[in-house]
Amino acid sequence: MHHDDIAGFFATRASLDTNAYLELSFTFECAGDPRAAAAHLASEQSTAQWQRVGIAEDFRPQFAAKVLELNATPLPAFSVPLAVTPPGPVHRCRAVIAHPHGNFGARLPNLISAVLGEGVYFAPGIPLVRLEDIRFPDAYLAHFEGPQFGVAGVRERLQVHGRPIFLGVIKPNIGLPPEPFAQLGYEGWLGGLDIAKDDEMLADAPYSPLAERATRLGALRVRAEQETGVPKGYLANITDEVDRLGALHDVAVNAGANFVMVNAMPVGVSGVRALRRVARVPIVTHFPFIAAFSRIPAHGVHSRVIARLQRLAGADVIIMPGFGDRMMTPPHEVLENVQACLEPMGPLKPSLPVPGGSDSAATLTGVYRQLGTVDFGFVPGRAVFGHPMGPRAGAMSLRQAWDSIAAGVPVAEHARSHPELAAALG
Amino acid sequence: MHHDDIAGFFATRASLDTNAYLELSFTFECAGDPRAAAAHLASEQSTAQWQRVGIAEDFRPQFAAKVLELNATPLPAFSVPLAVTPPGPVHRCRAVIAHPHGNFGARLPNLISAVLGEGVYFAPGIPLVRLEDIRFPDAYLAHFEGPQFGVAGVRERLQVHGRPIFLGVIKPNIGLPPEPFAQLGYEGWLGGLDIAKDDEMLADAPYSPLAERATRLGALRVRAEQETGVPKGYLANITDEVDRLGALHDVAVNAGANFVMVNAMPVGVSGVRALRRVARVPIVTHFPFIAAFSRIPAHGVHSRVIARLQRLAGADVIIMPGFGDRMMTPPHEVLENVQACLEPMGPLKPSLPVPGGSDSAATLTGVYRQLGTVDFGFVPGRAVFGHPMGPRAGAMSLRQAWDSIAAGVPVAEHARSHPELAAALG
Repeated sequence: MHHDDIAGFFATRASLDTNAYLELSFTFECAGDPRAAAAHLASEQSTAQWQRVGIAEDFRPQFAAKVLELNATPLPAFSVPLAVTPPGPVHRCRAVIAHPHGNFGARLPNLISAVLGEGVYFAPGIPLVRLEDIRFPDAYLAHFEGPQFGVAGVRERLQVHGRPIFLGVIKPNIGLPPEPFAQLGYEGWLGGLDIAKDDEMLADAPYSPLAERATRLGALRVRAEQETGVPKGYLANITDEVDRLGALHDVAVNAGANFVMVNAMPVGVSGVRALRRVARVPIVTHFPFIAAFSRIPAHGVHSRVIARLQRLAGADVIIMPGFGDRMMTPPHEVLENVQACLEPMGPLKPSLPVPGGSDSAATLTGVYRQLGTVDFGFVPGRAVFGHPMGPRAGAMSLRQAWDSIAAGVPVAEHARSHPELAAALG
Repeated sequence: MHHDDIAGFFATRASLDTNAYLELSFTFECAGDPRAAAAHLASEQSTAQWQRVGIAEDFRPQFAAKVLELNATPLPAFSVPLAVTPPGPVHRCRAVIAHPHGNFGARLPNLISAVLGEGVYFAPGIPLVRLEDIRFPDAYLAHFEGPQFGVAGVRERLQVHGRPIFLGVIKPNIGLPPEPFAQLGYEGWLGGLDIAKDDEMLADAPYSPLAERATRLGALRVRAEQETGVPKGYLANITDEVDRLGALHDVAVNAGANFVMVNAMPVGVSGVRALRRVARVPIVTHFPFIAAFSRIPAHGVHSRVIARLQRLAGADVIIMPGFGDRMMTPPHEVLENVQACLEPMGPLKPSLPVPGGSDSAATLTGVYRQLGTVDFGFVPGRAVFGHPMGPRAGAMSLRQAWDSIAAGVPVAEHARSHPELAAALG
């Protein structure tokens, strides 16, 4: 890019029709002039070569991405060891780029190709770059269906109001046949789980065919509803090849599942959106693979971008890494993901956030306090199904923990008269 | 995990039916005992809780992943700045893990969920982990269709043998209407391109609807074939929502496209496989998003794993980052990706590798020498469509460069009598 061309990739917000642009927040580390690097980042993700040879034309005014903000701080060197680095003085930068969504339209794969594609990760001089956030104007959001049920619809189905939704990952799962697997779910429901769920790795496998699993859990779900007098959820993992999702949804739902789960990135967010178009029950998405590109602070994608894409695709419930050392996710990132689910997003309903990972009755108070809302799902696995007194007691321990929080009584005090809770804390 | 349980996640290759296992090569950095960390890595990606409370059962013999090899070297600290790190002495490790594919079957999303899922990226004590390679036994590969045409089928269609396939990315593309866009492709074909291709960011957009683009290029492709006497390819980018891919394939092919492209990760490799089941022309995959999780040597996934998944999904041609500083990819990684396309893979046909990025007549000799084979595609953009003498001359410069290589004449010498080549080198 010639020096004179750089200015063509900078603009002020006031000069743009903001409804025509996505706003992308990037951090990056570059070698050489930060202003030139930012211009390349904008150019490569949009117009690149913006005129034919020998023709007086310029596609930049309508089609180029434009840098709205840029801050640069010198660094002694790139902060992460890399195989190949460009030469020149290093800066760490923050940039906000306006990207015209008319270039590709309301299509998730094309959106991803533009904002997380070759143009972003191969911009000259920028070996480290992270898309920190993305904002969509209402004109763009209007083309997406978003969640069909959302937080209110999920609460309505379960008749749960004013408290978190309690989910339990049935364990063991890999290797356990449907009959004893369903029995575990039944015990969990009787103990107070709202939703008994499949593990995200449990597929339509020979040792646990989905049709049989859903049939057995569907029957026991009805029995649990009759015995407890409240609605219950069975969340079937239908993660599979994208051209099987619709059929597997029908298999699971016809057999008695009333929630379905897919692993968002392994299936692709476009696969989630396709499922949304045919789903009759709430869609729950799970987080495999995301940490591969969101963990390193200096490169990749902030996980809230993926949360926003899942909401755009129509996830009613989004399971994400939660608090606690095990999940290796800083608390601010958990909160940013929860916010991406719940905050206003044009006409789209909110998704129920489920920050998970090694939770139990002992962690509920902390999770609730940090989130500052009851609009979340709580999803232990071993705390319910590895509870020393069994799954029913494990589920009871969660509800007892919530009862004590709701009553303003310390959980440890409540445990003195509730042996299931005491065992969970022990 | 209790100390006694660790041994249950180690095995020797000789003790296993290797046809029942995938072999996964990981590098990771861990805190604490490397042997315990490796056992966690195997456990979390497979059985996790392997028995019900109070029941004498053990799912590990059949269903657990097992560590086959482990090497650990002390490190002073984690090599990458992280937001959250576990405590304890740090080691850098290499591990080979055998993962039983019967846990999930021949389904790409479930495969990804197992080998790149929560179990891998959230194994206790392991904040940095990279899946370096994956090997599939023939018993697993037998369930996949793989490429429909492969290298031989692509060559047959184009009647090109004994030399690389020359592709050109028509530029400009974002903003340019179909009529002048098609004219550029036509010029490229007349100059010697085998395939004129859409940019990976060019969608079915209002300024360039796919149906009109494919119709215009289809008509000019036939004319170029008549004028040159050789088959030509128009590669239409049909990247879009997964439930539109089949229909867009038909739109493009019925209008005259004879190759189709999808962006593998944005669409999802399962979407590629679904397209493979209905495609009537070779499928080309492109690489947006992959660098988000493959660039950092210490974390994420080696890009050759994604190349293998694309071949498994049925990509006939795989476009990948190539040589040269611009692509920020070490030469060994380019070669490893090319190898993943071409080496034997059970019953699956090879995919044609296309290492790309800022190539021109000036880089062809180096690329050919490094690859050591003619079985590759060469895919310049600006070197053809930004050539100072126009696209026809740009395409001619590539063929002239190859003619000189084939004749054993230095390219610079050949340029003396070929002005198009001279301009490309200038």
